[in-house]
Amino acid sequence: MKLATRKDGTRDGALIVVRRDGAAYVDAADVAPTLQAALDRWDEVEPRLRERAAALQDGRLPGTPLRTQDLRSPLPRAYEWIDGSAFINHVILVRRARGAEPPATLRTDPLVYQGGSGMLLDPTEDIPMVDPHWGLDYEAELVAILGDTPRGVTPEQAGAHVKLLTLVNDVTLRQLIPAELAKSFGFFTSKPASAFGPFAVTPDELGPAWKDGRVHLPIRVTLNDTVVCTANAGPEMHFSFHDLLAHIAKTRAFTAGTLLGSGTVSNEDWSTGYACLAEQRMKEIISEGAPRTPYLKVGDHVRIEVLGPDGVSVFGAIDQRVAAA
Amino acid sequence: MKLATRKDGTRDGALIVVRRDGAAYVDAADVAPTLQAALDRWDEVEPRLRERAAALQDGRLPGTPLRTQDLRSPLPRAYEWIDGSAFINHVILVRRARGAEPPATLRTDPLVYQGGSGMLLDPTEDIPMVDPHWGLDYEAELVAILGDTPRGVTPEQAGAHVKLLTLVNDVTLRQLIPAELAKSFGFFTSKPASAFGPFAVTPDELGPAWKDGRVHLPIRVTLNDTVVCTANAGPEMHFSFHDLLAHIAKTRAFTAGTLLGSGTVSNEDWSTGYACLAEQRMKEIISEGAPRTPYLKVGDHVRIEVLGPDGVSVFGAIDQRVAAA
Repeated sequence: MKLATRKDGTRDGALIVVRRDGAAYVDAADVAPTLQAALDRWDEVEPRLRERAAALQDGRLPGTPLRTQDLRSPLPRAYEWIDGSAFINHVILVRRARGAEPPATLRTDPLVYQGGSGMLLDPTEDIPMVDPHWGLDYEAELVAILGDTPRGVTPEQAGAHVKLLTLVNDVTLRQLIPAELAKSFGFFTSKPASAFGPFAVTPDELGPAWKDGRVHLPIRVTLNDTVVCTANAGPEMHFSFHDLLAHIAKTRAFTAGTLLGSGTVSNEDWSTGYACLAEQRMKEIISEGAPRTPYLKVGDHVRIEVLGPDGVSVFGAIDQRVAAA
Repeated sequence: MKLATRKDGTRDGALIVVRRDGAAYVDAADVAPTLQAALDRWDEVEPRLRERAAALQDGRLPGTPLRTQDLRSPLPRAYEWIDGSAFINHVILVRRARGAEPPATLRTDPLVYQGGSGMLLDPTEDIPMVDPHWGLDYEAELVAILGDTPRGVTPEQAGAHVKLLTLVNDVTLRQLIPAELAKSFGFFTSKPASAFGPFAVTPDELGPAWKDGRVHLPIRVTLNDTVVCTANAGPEMHFSFHDLLAHIAKTRAFTAGTLLGSGTVSNEDWSTGYACLAEQRMKEIISEGAPRTPYLKVGDHVRIEVLGPDGVSVFGAIDQRVAAA
């Protein structure tokens, strides 16, 4: 089942059910007005949404043509956005890029940070460029949307709390990171608003590609219409979503609608490209002595999507341009 | 005007208006069902809530007796919880306690971290003790509840976005902090759920004590019925709420209902006591060579409140016991 949030002039948008091919939708506001409301009473609401999705899929409901620019992030504002950094290759490259060592517990203790979740960008909204010296970068990631999750869940129990999956462009201001991390309180100002979605899909929508708490599909990123990333989001995700969820639940519980990110998808094989500019710049430093790829500039166009084995865009495409703020 | 959120079996509770003496309330769910809903359309809702508060105050509405144990945190789940550390004395003492230097930019660049906001404790809810080795501590702080705040607000503009003020017990797991900070991604697991409130009050409720974006009143903390803190929350707050708000708005905007904390209240004068155990332990190390005060244990009772010049409890009291999880 694919869900999304349609722009309707409200803060939280209107819940819709999307056809598998992403080309049509039906309203679902009578079942639950918003995706948050649906997640708040998921056990009751899910069967009714699935019924509507089936009717849309088999043509009993005709559906309305869907345009991605009419969509918000699945949760235009969420109660928590917690981002992991589960691809070891990314951690090593990016730390090397800023002259920092990977943490000693790299492979045993997951890295997660708490991000801002109160105002998220739409999946086709411009990325605002406030100051070109801030080093604007994209990061292509997978995201789990959680149901209510008690403190202390184990990795084995975690799967039941992953209700939906989606994408994020975790926008990052690279040049603000060193000063923030020097203060040891986290990334704060170096992580502006990110864009999610457009579709939030139940894990079964991925078939066998959802396995062991990982999305075993390539994430496809284009920058100005050139494919720059085809890295697989599965095998090299060192900590699965289940591991990440058990980690964050060590000391507290989470409300339905919490967003949990994988971290930038990254593969050891350089031929799979890069899901953020910082990695490519580090590779250039390693192989050529200096970075050649600039950070994002006004007018740049970033597109992130995941294609299933049947060629269908699983989550739809995050499709953003950089615009002067 | 004093507002609060009454337990009603829902996730977000029901909005109420509280009499100035904190002893009675009237429902306000017909004006806005929840505090979040009120903040979402504050300009329209505020005059109607003030009208009701006036009627309660002058006896036109009799009100229902209020019991703090019937209240939730003003926002039982909030879209963001951002905590500053604006009391320089606290930063210096706590860093010294964990063998770390204060950051070089201590007096010029505010410290803030993004905290979890999806499941907050009620103001009289037990603080769960999961593992006594985690070093459970309380932190008594003031909190600004924001209205919609655009990116780029200046300290001069910030005051208009502070809609309400309240208290927080920012629960902290001291022994988990060093390993978290060593990973450089922030406090994550060392900051479990915190308790807010019980009352959220408009700044004018403080009279001249709300000045320059600071609450110029002592914060009174009792631990097992002994007064352990009377530090003033005003003069030594190096960065005001206005400064903190301008800082966090450097790279993004904030939705109505965002919670912004002052950091642990702390005065240079040791006779004003301690608003967290870590400070007292550091003072003991400095003066006696070793800490004598233990972290919280099961059964301990922490009470945090602010009394106005007239003796009225401005925000009501956070009043929690530590209980085995």
